Amino acid sequence: MTDLLLRNVRPMGGAATDVLVQGGRIAAPGTIPSGTPVEDGAGLLLLPGFVEGHTHLDKTTFHEPDWLVNTVGPRIIDKIDNEREWRARTGHDAYAASLAMARAFLAAGTTRIRSHVDVDTQAGTAHVERVLQTRAAMDGLQDIQIVAFPQSGILGRQGTEAALDAALSLGADIVGGLDPCAIERDPVKHLDIVFALAEKHAKPVDIHLHEQGSMGAFSLELILERTRALGMEGKVVVSHAFCLGDIPERERDDLLAQMARLGVGIATTAPASRPVPLVAPCRAAGVTIFAGNDGIRDTWTPYGSPDMLERAMLVGLRNNFRRDDEIALAFDCISGAGAAGCGFADYGLAPGARAELVLVDARNLAEAVVVRPARKLVVSGGRVVARDGALLV
Amino acid sequence: MTDLLLRNVRPMGGAATDVLVQGGRIAAPGTIPSGTPVEDGAGLLLLPGFVEGHTHLDKTTFHEPDWLVNTVGPRIIDKIDNEREWRARTGHDAYAASLAMARAFLAAGTTRIRSHVDVDTQAGTAHVERVLQTRAAMDGLQDIQIVAFPQSGILGRQGTEAALDAALSLGADIVGGLDPCAIERDPVKHLDIVFALAEKHAKPVDIHLHEQGSMGAFSLELILERTRALGMEGKVVVSHAFCLGDIPERERDDLLAQMARLGVGIATTAPASRPVPLVAPCRAAGVTIFAGNDGIRDTWTPYGSPDMLERAMLVGLRNNFRRDDEIALAFDCISGAGAAGCGFADYGLAPGARAELVLVDARNLAEAVVVRPARKLVVSGGRVVARDGALLV
Repeated sequence: MTDLLLRNVRPMGGAATDVLVQGGRIAAPGTIPSGTPVEDGAGLLLLPGFVEGHTHLDKTTFHEPDWLVNTVGPRIIDKIDNEREWRARTGHDAYAASLAMARAFLAAGTTRIRSHVDVDTQAGTAHVERVLQTRAAMDGLQDIQIVAFPQSGILGRQGTEAALDAALSLGADIVGGLDPCAIERDPVKHLDIVFALAEKHAKPVDIHLHEQGSMGAFSLELILERTRALGMEGKVVVSHAFCLGDIPERERDDLLAQMARLGVGIATTAPASRPVPLVAPCRAAGVTIFAGNDGIRDTWTPYGSPDMLERAMLVGLRNNFRRDDEIALAFDCISGAGAAGCGFADYGLAPGARAELVLVDARNLAEAVVVRPARKLVVSGGRVVARDGALLV
Repeated sequence: MTDLLLRNVRPMGGAATDVLVQGGRIAAPGTIPSGTPVEDGAGLLLLPGFVEGHTHLDKTTFHEPDWLVNTVGPRIIDKIDNEREWRARTGHDAYAASLAMARAFLAAGTTRIRSHVDVDTQAGTAHVERVLQTRAAMDGLQDIQIVAFPQSGILGRQGTEAALDAALSLGADIVGGLDPCAIERDPVKHLDIVFALAEKHAKPVDIHLHEQGSMGAFSLELILERTRALGMEGKVVVSHAFCLGDIPERERDDLLAQMARLGVGIATTAPASRPVPLVAPCRAAGVTIFAGNDGIRDTWTPYGSPDMLERAMLVGLRNNFRRDDEIALAFDCISGAGAAGCGFADYGLAPGARAELVLVDARNLAEAVVVRPARKLVVSGGRVVARDGALLV
């Protein structure tokens, strides 16, 4: 039962129409086979399923009965060390965590997720294995990409490289990396390991780069050099890329031009308290920029939400997008640009795309982003999977 | 019927207790008079009614059937001119707008509001009169302070000063002002008019200061000089004060020390895309800083929400507040510090305060800010005024 006729919906706020789903995909307009199940869209706004481009499904405490009181220090290294200590102490269950989070995302209309998953000498590949279980559980409803992510660094902890290698053999899709200068202290060695793993496994790269200013720009240059040298055009994403928010605009634009030529994308969480790569200059340069929450209610941060419309709102606020046409760009960061940047196939509202559909009560796209109304209906895999925010699967 | 016994609630996340309301105020624990109406708090989190410290009730399109498509230019002056043109064209009804907005605020638990209201040569005092009507309609349920606000400037439009004078005579509580250099082009003349009106009417001042960097710091110095010279300690608020977010820290701290001595407060909207006065250094200096939405769904911005817990979250995100003790500071910006900064009396959860109470389903204060749960119950004027988000009055 992966056929469906969705009557009277307004795709992206356009004129009301019917959408036919056949074999789990959006069909070209034509004859409706008799017996096709029908859903009344009641004139609601139809959006494509959302794309979460950067999160950490394995870390969340979203599903736990007790609130995690956060008393962690201000530096990134404080948070890294605190998390490992907390994991060891609590025996945190990365399967329960990631499954609860993935299901909450689906209920709120997100059908594609890129999750960084910790790989280190303490957890080994265990978290990747747990998120692989979650991916299997969500198969056919939600696509989950797994980045094997060395959250505690590679160089300071003997055995991490081997664990990353094993995680990629187990099924992780993407090689992660982390602040080559500020955390790893040896950018060449770190990046050479990351890109060697990518070459060995023929998998793409997605590197966390929190480094600001000229240090971040230097690390970014090293990433671009390796992308070019290894012919990895279109296979590299830089997450955060805060440096693109605080270096001089001429230097930024030079880096963006290189990134566009090499097809290097940017995942942003659009944080309010940090310099960020702005959406408009990235798009003007031809760089794909897309959005994600980062962690949600974990030891790093209590914030975040499985509602990607909220993330689009935060992108809009961070970029001072007030006009309706600008807010459409914020929405693109959690939809089309997210799918393009992560390499999710068969995405969108055109015939042939997988039928991942979200209905909300909003007059248009801008209102959907600003108001973030409840999800009246979510369709994935050709069937209704959530109604009024409640999962049916 | 302004008595009430609220059973089994957790004030600010503390131990469960009962709260007795008598004559519309929180009573000291003691004997419960028989016949007192009882509400079961079901162990929910009890918070004081929220304080909206900076909004524009008169401008909103929140209540209108059509979405306002925003196509306005990027500069402040673009938005000022666009708004006047739009008002004239649509005959915008500032009474319907402000009443709908005030009611939405009350349903979401906000019992005290400072609203800037436009006064200019086009509207004259009409918008102030309309918001005075709204204030009368909300009497006993919600306190609304009205700032007579020269949105289009005073100096360039003959008659604005007289209109401000008339608005203050009609019942506006506070004298507003606007970017003495960047918009008014004559900071001394502008501020002399603003402070002369304040002196004449014996009313406080609240000045919009969007100016950044050294220009903003210069305008701020002129404001502080006049506060000191006129003995207006404790009677002046600077709204936005973006300059305190981008001048060198030593200069900032010198200005904050002066502001603390003069009792000059700061209203912030904590915008993600602008430099802002940060909460921690303001509090460390002894400056009262509190929060507001600014406009909500008006010609300036489509964003904003009558949910002050969302504003607290945005304050937390802008200040990178991740620890529970830091998030409590963000909450203070929409509660205690807001009441102190605006001069709202009899506020809080202590005996003697007016009983303005909000119940939410959250484990503690940090979760209330991060999750922004629905308001299960709102009490104001000693009675239940909203339940599950729906107003009963």
